[in-house]
Amino acid sequence: MEIEIKPIGIVHSPFKKTEDIEPGKYAYPRGFDSIQGELEIFKEFEDGLKDIEGFSHLIVIFAFHKSEGFKLHTKPLLDDILRGVFSTRSSHRPNPIGITVVNVRERKGNILKVSGVDMIEGTPILDIKPYTPRDQKSSIKLGWLDDKMKK
Amino acid sequence: MEIEIKPIGIVHSPFKKTEDIEPGKYAYPRGFDSIQGELEIFKEFEDGLKDIEGFSHLIVIFAFHKSEGFKLHTKPLLDDILRGVFSTRSSHRPNPIGITVVNVRERKGNILKVSGVDMIEGTPILDIKPYTPRDQKSSIKLGWLDDKMKK
Repeated sequence: MEIEIKPIGIVHSPFKKTEDIEPGKYAYPRGFDSIQGELEIFKEFEDGLKDIEGFSHLIVIFAFHKSEGFKLHTKPLLDDILRGVFSTRSSHRPNPIGITVVNVRERKGNILKVSGVDMIEGTPILDIKPYTPRDQKSSIKLGWLDDKMKK
Repeated sequence: MEIEIKPIGIVHSPFKKTEDIEPGKYAYPRGFDSIQGELEIFKEFEDGLKDIEGFSHLIVIFAFHKSEGFKLHTKPLLDDILRGVFSTRSSHRPNPIGITVVNVRERKGNILKVSGVDMIEGTPILDIKPYTPRDQKSSIKLGWLDDKMKK
């Protein structure tokens, strides 16, 4: 069973390539909060943005389009030990799908101006969903990441 | 540009079909917290689960495999008004991808016992990621959902 997925838009980002992103930013929960960019939704899907301005935060599902192949064990940016890929946010995954929660600043037609961008320029957007209280979890445990995240 | 995606596992759920899920549960941020199920990761991907037991919460990305076609305006379960599909969590999306954050209770080999299940039996799993402080957002605004969510 294969599922065909096609982009509904693209990300515009100050990061032009992966190397432009300082890995240390990932150690801070708010490391990307000030990074601004745009979500350009293709015109054919613009009607699907109705009502979106009311939400402060959106979940963006995107393709890691520069990722080639995957490894089941991978060395995360924040660690020196090989970890299981599903316990990391690595881009080298069996399905190269990423998610990031962004803050909506403004909508102009098919363009959403957002902050909290950690994707690179040209990243294909696969879906956008409202972030809701069901996505807010507390008392979380972070496994190997625990002493790598700055609190 | 099309992206090919294939399942890495399947969900086992007490909900055998969509109609088994009481829509009212969606109105409560913790409505599904007590619903237990299993994430069965296919043997070929089991090694990717290394280190996952340390995390309390996982983001599950899955396919809405029963969803046929999409509408850019859709009537959400919790509302009587047509909303833009990207401001809803409807299954009828241009790319039929869903996400749910679950709580990990136990791992047995390639099986993760979890709670917080809102998917139906047989749902194809596309990816699993650790839920981290970067996914915790506060002061969120909920647009049309605001007076529909029970607080």
